[in-house]
Amino acid sequence: MRDLSGGLEWLSLNWATVRERWDLRQAIEGCARHGIPGIAPWREPLQAMGIREAARLIRDRGLTVTGLCRAGMFPAADAAGRRAAIDEVRRAIDEAAAIEAQCLVVLAGGMPGGTKDLACARAQARDGIAAVLPHARAAGVPLAIEPLHPMYAADRCCISTLAQANELCAALDPAGEGGLGVAIDVYHVFWDPELAREIARAGAARRILAFHICDWLVPTRDLLLDRGMMGDGVIDIPRIRGLVEAAGYAGFVEVEIFSRDWWRRDPDEVLEVMAERYRALV
Amino acid sequence: MRDLSGGLEWLSLNWATVRERWDLRQAIEGCARHGIPGIAPWREPLQAMGIREAARLIRDRGLTVTGLCRAGMFPAADAAGRRAAIDEVRRAIDEAAAIEAQCLVVLAGGMPGGTKDLACARAQARDGIAAVLPHARAAGVPLAIEPLHPMYAADRCCISTLAQANELCAALDPAGEGGLGVAIDVYHVFWDPELAREIARAGAARRILAFHICDWLVPTRDLLLDRGMMGDGVIDIPRIRGLVEAAGYAGFVEVEIFSRDWWRRDPDEVLEVMAERYRALV
Repeated sequence: MRDLSGGLEWLSLNWATVRERWDLRQAIEGCARHGIPGIAPWREPLQAMGIREAARLIRDRGLTVTGLCRAGMFPAADAAGRRAAIDEVRRAIDEAAAIEAQCLVVLAGGMPGGTKDLACARAQARDGIAAVLPHARAAGVPLAIEPLHPMYAADRCCISTLAQANELCAALDPAGEGGLGVAIDVYHVFWDPELAREIARAGAARRILAFHICDWLVPTRDLLLDRGMMGDGVIDIPRIRGLVEAAGYAGFVEVEIFSRDWWRRDPDEVLEVMAERYRALV
Repeated sequence: MRDLSGGLEWLSLNWATVRERWDLRQAIEGCARHGIPGIAPWREPLQAMGIREAARLIRDRGLTVTGLCRAGMFPAADAAGRRAAIDEVRRAIDEAAAIEAQCLVVLAGGMPGGTKDLACARAQARDGIAAVLPHARAAGVPLAIEPLHPMYAADRCCISTLAQANELCAALDPAGEGGLGVAIDVYHVFWDPELAREIARAGAARRILAFHICDWLVPTRDLLLDRGMMGDGVIDIPRIRGLVEAAGYAGFVEVEIFSRDWWRRDPDEVLEVMAERYRALV
């Protein structure tokens, strides 16, 4: 397991962590100022800044793009909706390629409004990923399927476990040609009794494309916007990082915190705390 | 699959559904008045009413006690805390026996405050259940291990999936002597991609001791107190009931709704709506 206490070499800022106060340009400059070498933009601020301009500034500041968030949301009530979702993911792949992102984070999506068929949503997500995979491979942008916590299964992501994501990868890329893998976020998976097994499985197939961290607060007051800073909650982050690295992952550690509390604070302070916690507690 | 539309023969009220306005006596009388033949008390109102008096009134009104909620919460920071938890579960078993409950609902408990070791909490839960099982068998009260939704893994129940509960049953009762099984609540398990397989497994071992229903609202505004009435959310309840009954379950369908919204309403109205939805949508 790597010793991260000596510097920030493998730290990445997911833009969502500062999204209420900084646009993407400010986040890029903030990372450069704080010596944080990785950044993960979201599509909306990326488009707002201009993709070429963002790519230029990111390159100029020497940052690595650890991922582009996010695309997917495949299930839809009709075929036209499903086609539109697939087209949108193809555009996201092109954006990810333009900023040389290490991966595009893919969320499966939930059940279309008014429906109650999770199996159907899962089948549509699988078909959608299959449909965009050739484009991802051609663009050189691997798709990182991110299982989200089961509390989002209905409306955001019907892929709730790393086992599901691994099975999907195995089904869609049986020969291991690449272009498909998983993003592992401790917030979404820490509860999973099968976590160690599934991390090992993902690693053995060389499919761990991203590793995200934050913390689970007790109590959690909101299903979406109450994630914690590392160390403020109950997730044994070093244990999970150890599993991920034992499985062969040697990339960035990306901090993604959706939190009304942290969004209220000065982003420069957030980055300072984040860097401290990363060196001491991750 | 049973046709439930013709009557209320298999309907049970979990007291928590009306807990803010009715004590246990009122809930018993309410069930009798509405023709609801099952009731599941909680320990606090049961103790407040007096266990013998509650047993007498329940018998007098001809109700079936589909379960006593709840006991467990085994993990603790020290051995004295763990012993106290085990003693408390033994008392709960005696109370369940006194009211002739069909089972005692067992929650594993979460991680002791300040700790981050889910595997340790799970081991303590297993040891705790093993310690109380002989008492449960002697009292004739089966223990129904209830997996809770993963969003409660940290602080309430480290058994998050039906697979975990099934494995625990198999480990602690390898010969199928009985006295141990599972409670399946659609709210906690509907998201699980392995649900069909694990329901079949529980049924094959004759271990489905209780079936609880409510609904998952979109959006869900609170992790604890925003469950929905059947039909108001996204859970395909008939599908899950079909799986449970195909696995051999032929018992009561217990309605357990933690909801600030429903707690505000007149409990007689809640029971009316609950009975209507049960006949039409479950």
